[in-house]
Amino acid sequence: MNYQALSAQIRQKKSYLCVGLDTDSQKLPAHLANVPDPVFEFNKAIIDATAPYAVAYKPNIAFYEAQGPRGWESLQKTLDYIPTDCFTIADAKRGDIGNTSGLYARAFFDPSAAGLDFDAITVAPYMGHDSVLPFLEYPGKWVILLALTSNPGSADFQRQQVDNETQELFETVIQKAQTWANHEQLMFVVGATQSDQIARIRELAPDNFLLIPGVGAQGGSLADVSKNGLTKDGGLLVNASRSILYASSGTDFAEAAAAEAKAIQAEMATYLN
Amino acid sequence: MNYQALSAQIRQKKSYLCVGLDTDSQKLPAHLANVPDPVFEFNKAIIDATAPYAVAYKPNIAFYEAQGPRGWESLQKTLDYIPTDCFTIADAKRGDIGNTSGLYARAFFDPSAAGLDFDAITVAPYMGHDSVLPFLEYPGKWVILLALTSNPGSADFQRQQVDNETQELFETVIQKAQTWANHEQLMFVVGATQSDQIARIRELAPDNFLLIPGVGAQGGSLADVSKNGLTKDGGLLVNASRSILYASSGTDFAEAAAAEAKAIQAEMATYLN
Repeated sequence: MNYQALSAQIRQKKSYLCVGLDTDSQKLPAHLANVPDPVFEFNKAIIDATAPYAVAYKPNIAFYEAQGPRGWESLQKTLDYIPTDCFTIADAKRGDIGNTSGLYARAFFDPSAAGLDFDAITVAPYMGHDSVLPFLEYPGKWVILLALTSNPGSADFQRQQVDNETQELFETVIQKAQTWANHEQLMFVVGATQSDQIARIRELAPDNFLLIPGVGAQGGSLADVSKNGLTKDGGLLVNASRSILYASSGTDFAEAAAAEAKAIQAEMATYLN
Repeated sequence: MNYQALSAQIRQKKSYLCVGLDTDSQKLPAHLANVPDPVFEFNKAIIDATAPYAVAYKPNIAFYEAQGPRGWESLQKTLDYIPTDCFTIADAKRGDIGNTSGLYARAFFDPSAAGLDFDAITVAPYMGHDSVLPFLEYPGKWVILLALTSNPGSADFQRQQVDNETQELFETVIQKAQTWANHEQLMFVVGATQSDQIARIRELAPDNFLLIPGVGAQGGSLADVSKNGLTKDGGLLVNASRSILYASSGTDFAEAAAAEAKAIQAEMATYLN
């Protein structure tokens, strides 16, 4: 899905909600324990319940990888089930030397390789340009580069003063990455818990979409993020995972997820106006 | 495998060679095309051929992930086949917020999860301490943190001047990480192409093992790396992948791999004396 189509989806659904499919096999409702693929059945119900309110889905790959080969099968079935009008993100935080990043790109972007055809992948910047460029060689696919993450450890390196104390490392990451790709193929991850920095990031990256995790369970404010981050084309994908997936642990988990997603979408609609 | 056992293996085999099992399904000898699991058959022959000369094996996970679920099965069989006196490294370059890094740790360290029981995993430092600590919660397991990598992109961020121009980012990574774990659970990745920096890294991390890729196809010098990096306990794992795996593309690939590994081991033996 390209920039214009994503922006159109945001206008149409009045939503920039991304649902994080961080499906923990140990947290599923008890009544799903005996179906053949509980993770997929859970995801299917969550997708059905939330698709009217979400423009994107983001499985975090760790949750599937921790299940071994059958986890990858659940992931593949889940991705195939997501409606084609939704943007899909492999939250994988990959990155390696060039020929190896090329294989990760093949894994997530080339359906003839591992059966996966995501629109986008999250990538860690530490190894620099040649660890990122192989993902950009797939026309129409996106890199979502970690910039300023939502966790406490973001202070350790991302906020190091660099360049003679003139700026912080995450700012250098955002600036350099824009020499590798434009806003039609490059987004940045910025934690919602860093909302005081979003206005600054908008100066550095006026047109790039920002993928914002950390609203909900991690405590970030949707109002603050939206005020500082929205652009004329949308420009934000705000992710919620646990608050939607585990809104109820009973047989009504999908209805509870829909209600939570609908509430977030309704709040987003007010900020889009 | 703990620090003392790894050090003893290095003394016994007179080797600090790590064989990188970066097995590209598109580069296998033609005669393996029709066996049920060509990647595993290839790895099995490479392991048999090189085990007398190697103390460690390091599958790069991208190569398996790009094969989908069957790639993970090949990986699991390969790991199970590696002799127990060899150290095993999942070259995965993972890292995410705490609860998610915990799932990656489960995937690679807890055999009841995904069937994998590696000794160590490579981890990207960008997200900071809480992205690394979950891996260290497994007693006896190791984190191998990216510090200064072998690729051109290492100049982009790792070599940024930080802390009022007093040092570079990779030095800060090495210093901070040593407050999270000691040398019995923490190694660093340092590219062989950065051999001018290894003496400096030895000042910062006198007792930690360094995992050194980039000898061979990437052009690093084993002599330079060894002169600056060896310690009384060994302190180095030098990785070679393509130069061993693809020493011959014919039916004699395993013999050619053995010869290449033996030549590297013989050179290492001279440096250990």
